[in-house]
Amino acid sequence: GDDEDLDLKVKWKGAPEFSSKDGAFKFKVRGRIMVDYTNADQDFAITGEPDVDATELRRGRLGVEGVVYHDVKYKFEYDFAGDGEVTDAYLQYKGLPVDITLGQFKTPNSLEEQTSSRFITFMERAAITDAFDLERQLGAGLSYKKEQWTAAAGIFGRNIADEANEEGTTFAARVTAAPILTDRRVVHLGASYRSRDNGDYEDLGLYRYRQRAADFHLTDRFVNTGQIGESDDLWGLESAVVLGSFSLQGEYMQLTSEVPADIDFSTHSPTYDGWYLSASYFLTGEMRNYDEGEFDRVHVNHPVNEGGWGAWQIAGRYDTIDLSEGGCEECGEQNTWLIGVNWHLNDYTRLMLNVNQSEIDGGINDGADITGVGLRAQVDW
Amino acid sequence: GDDEDLDLKVKWKGAPEFSSKDGAFKFKVRGRIMVDYTNADQDFAITGEPDVDATELRRGRLGVEGVVYHDVKYKFEYDFAGDGEVTDAYLQYKGLPVDITLGQFKTPNSLEEQTSSRFITFMERAAITDAFDLERQLGAGLSYKKEQWTAAAGIFGRNIADEANEEGTTFAARVTAAPILTDRRVVHLGASYRSRDNGDYEDLGLYRYRQRAADFHLTDRFVNTGQIGESDDLWGLESAVVLGSFSLQGEYMQLTSEVPADIDFSTHSPTYDGWYLSASYFLTGEMRNYDEGEFDRVHVNHPVNEGGWGAWQIAGRYDTIDLSEGGCEECGEQNTWLIGVNWHLNDYTRLMLNVNQSEIDGGINDGADITGVGLRAQVDW
Amino acid sequence: GDDEDLDLKVKWKGAPEFSSKDGAFKFKVRGRIMVDYTNADQDFAITGEPDVDATELRRGRLGVEGVVYHDVKYKFEYDFAGDGEVTDAYLQYKGLPVDITLGQFKTPNSLEEQTSSRFITFMERAAITDAFDLERQLGAGLSYKKEQWTAAAGIFGRNIADEANEEGTTFAARVTAAPILTDRRVVHLGASYRSRDNGDYEDLGLYRYRQRAADFHLTDRFVNTGQIGESDDLWGLESAVVLGSFSLQGEYMQLTSEVPADIDFSTHSPTYDGWYLSASYFLTGEMRNYDEGEFDRVHVNHPVNEGGWGAWQIAGRYDTIDLSEGGCEECGEQNTWLIGVNWHLNDYTRLMLNVNQSEIDGGINDGADITGVGLRAQVDW
Repeated sequence: GDDEDLDLKVKWKGAPEFSSKDGAFKFKVRGRIMVDYTNADQDFAITGEPDVDATELRRGRLGVEGVVYHDVKYKFEYDFAGDGEVTDAYLQYKGLPVDITLGQFKTPNSLEEQTSSRFITFMERAAITDAFDLERQLGAGLSYKKEQWTAAAGIFGRNIADEANEEGTTFAARVTAAPILTDRRVVHLGASYRSRDNGDYEDLGLYRYRQRAADFHLTDRFVNTGQIGESDDLWGLESAVVLGSFSLQGEYMQLTSEVPADIDFSTHSPTYDGWYLSASYFLTGEMRNYDEGEFDRVHVNHPVNEGGWGAWQIAGRYDTIDLSEGGCEECGEQNTWLIGVNWHLNDYTRLMLNVNQSEIDGGINDGADITGVGLRAQVDW
Repeated sequence: GDDEDLDLKVKWKGAPEFSSKDGAFKFKVRGRIMVDYTNADQDFAITGEPDVDATELRRGRLGVEGVVYHDVKYKFEYDFAGDGEVTDAYLQYKGLPVDITLGQFKTPNSLEEQTSSRFITFMERAAITDAFDLERQLGAGLSYKKEQWTAAAGIFGRNIADEANEEGTTFAARVTAAPILTDRRVVHLGASYRSRDNGDYEDLGLYRYRQRAADFHLTDRFVNTGQIGESDDLWGLESAVVLGSFSLQGEYMQLTSEVPADIDFSTHSPTYDGWYLSASYFLTGEMRNYDEGEFDRVHVNHPVNEGGWGAWQIAGRYDTIDLSEGGCEECGEQNTWLIGVNWHLNDYTRLMLNVNQSEIDGGINDGADITGVGLRAQVDW
Repeated sequence: GDDEDLDLKVKWKGAPEFSSKDGAFKFKVRGRIMVDYTNADQDFAITGEPDVDATELRRGRLGVEGVVYHDVKYKFEYDFAGDGEVTDAYLQYKGLPVDITLGQFKTPNSLEEQTSSRFITFMERAAITDAFDLERQLGAGLSYKKEQWTAAAGIFGRNIADEANEEGTTFAARVTAAPILTDRRVVHLGASYRSRDNGDYEDLGLYRYRQRAADFHLTDRFVNTGQIGESDDLWGLESAVVLGSFSLQGEYMQLTSEVPADIDFSTHSPTYDGWYLSASYFLTGEMRNYDEGEFDRVHVNHPVNEGGWGAWQIAGRYDTIDLSEGGCEECGEQNTWLIGVNWHLNDYTRLMLNVNQSEIDGGINDGADITGVGLRAQVDW
């Protein structure tokens, strides 16, 4: 038949990934929906903030990725949630041992940050990733990835949403190793660094360090340095262990900010830090899937459709962020416990339940106790 | 040939719907363009509003829908018209007799509202659907659909665009029956209910009931209660008849709102209502296509390409909305006549002409007579 | 095999273009990423504007195009860069000798404007296209295209982003001829006209004519009439020559604006004009690809992957815009030199380098000298 002339291959990855027979071209539409319900008590007596009882489109993304002429990969995705933002928007040359990336992508920092929001264990990432502004920025990067180790570095301007005449410059780098990497066992170690200067900060404001209560997305922020930093340096250590269905993951990060002389702050080089340790276990035998320095999609043994019950994962995390230095109104520390249950109906669908509690130590919100429950329904393609 | 390994099926539904051979995965890109021109006389002498002579992208939507692992359907769509908004954003479990939907979708109310904007008979839906805020909200729903009857219910927070700490809760349900349902004859009957409370309305404002003049989208609103409701209850009855190329459709809805004591209103439980009756006829022999409690795509007998003239439909509607109670400035009634001609070039393309006239009865715009003409070009895929 | 039933054809055009076997339906996802870095000295001593040292997503577009039922083509695309905007959003009937287009599309003016941003020679189009507001508007158009000549005309309201009760009306038309058109030689001649009136300009403001310094996108505007025009007339002449790898292109445009009596302007029918002349040469043997009155994709002889060095193009442009009449503060002339190098890695990917310099003559910025460097990475699909 004349189908023999059809220059097409397909792999089903949620949505179909199409490619030409010679592999010169690839194309896939991609996206994700995450819808949340959050109910939280924000300790009104201390914080003055009312309870949260609300739904949210946490992420609603649509995008594409592809390859043109063998070696040039591209990815473009937009998140329609909230005010909307461009997420990945880059092209990448893959014809050399070292990949060259141009455009907007994540600065190479933190295992938790590098792992897609589709594959993180809790509804929100650990406090250090938000408090220290880990995000996508527009720049140029080099990366080298082998099964057992990776190295990446980049030089960046700002995130696409931040416009300024003089943007300042960010430099970031990360190395990881997996000295143990077998079918069911992984030991991951990594370290990363980031240095930012704020350029013409009259346009964009000084850097600000802060975090939402109880690691929810709809709660308010009770530790918050305000806008203080004209430049900062960040370094972090990360580790993860996978032992079959059991997994441990932890990170430590420390940031030193340079505060201009005209800001009323008790120190002009405050140092902030934070860390988390999380553990998780699949009751149904699956494992967290490690891939070149980050965690990837979980493969469900018995999807709900095939007479199975899907994958059930239980998890806990202790998460702390210390923004105390400087003696400002909301300079303080937040310590958070999280308990999570994830039900993966299949490889592309999961329901999540998080029960979280934060305590604030220091600042005007000292002693506040924020407790809440979050629910998420997630699908990606 | 090695095409025998291509795990792909395709159905052309405007754009191609791809699926894997075992049906476990499906994927389709979807969207619509509706571009309008409106020319209306807004009776400046009474209303103080100038004439309308303007073009508009009424809807410009792009999205995807698909299935992952047999039973989980998803749909995500964005409307780029106006300020932009997420429309459908949900996942749906279809592996049980009752479908479970999580995310943003239409509350189950009104035949006119449930029917896609691609398939309604006039350029804009009847006044009750706008005046009483029928819309998509974020929540969880159950639905059961058979050829001859449907039942659906859901519990909801707000629309994704409305953000508040406390959103309040909406409950809605609808049942429909089609006691007669043959190839060319349909009798549809339905009833629905919706109860909303406004939560922390200081964030989002009280509910407001209002409608644009002459059922156009670019005219101003001359009946408008202002923001008054902290909760409301709505019920509606609906019916439609298809007799070959001829069709009748009508609905009645009544809403009672609870108005806080500090609002200056002559009654604190005002009741508003409205109804419409429309008739349409295909000169070219087609019929309105009924499908499980809503109207679906018209199949054109002789598309313009194949030597035919496409499908020609003529239609009329009388539409009334009574927002008189409360004695506020713009509390009044609007009665509207609409005449429409629709030219379906093919199943996916139509041109629409509407000639509409409204009279305002009551309030400061009493006696105003708004008349206009609207044109639309529409394509969907 | 049962693939013989697969109703699918595919052409790889970056992303796959799918069609049904009978050609009745087509569908393709399309998009582009352009990420820029700009470094410019804005002559602070004269202009008071600081240097530019910034990255930008210049264009981040995603959209679709397709055909339903043989004759109805549609195209919908959104640009997520900046504040975001709908670009093309139209349907087009192609079943007659003359194509009929309804929706938003470019008014038919200027070779430089008609040529896609993916295929222009420099990072930004010539000054006349911005200063005289050549853009997409919502309307109805007729076009007739043959290999050697084209004619197009349309009547328009405003761009989708501009909302007003009374939009005013734009009429535009363009004719082009290619008296010489062989494999490696092209002579293109064209002329176009546009007439706009501003409708109810209290909503949208009067027309304003202005241009950014040094033809960069991130610099400021130092020639700027301010909002002055209630209507205007524009005509332009255009020409291009392709002699193998060498190409010349030039245009002249003149605009006369009607300024209301209450605006303090030294003439109430000022005339503005501008022109550019550009030359380019492919060191690697490729040529600019002419197609029905505009320039199209360059086909790279030896893409980087296949042991080749891609295509290398060098180019220069002189570009002038004279907005002097009227004697306003920033009424002046801007003369710009541009030098460019483009490296096409393959048909869908290019890197661009522009070195530009402007001089301002007249107005409060008289004598200012703006110089800068721009870099772009571009991919499209």
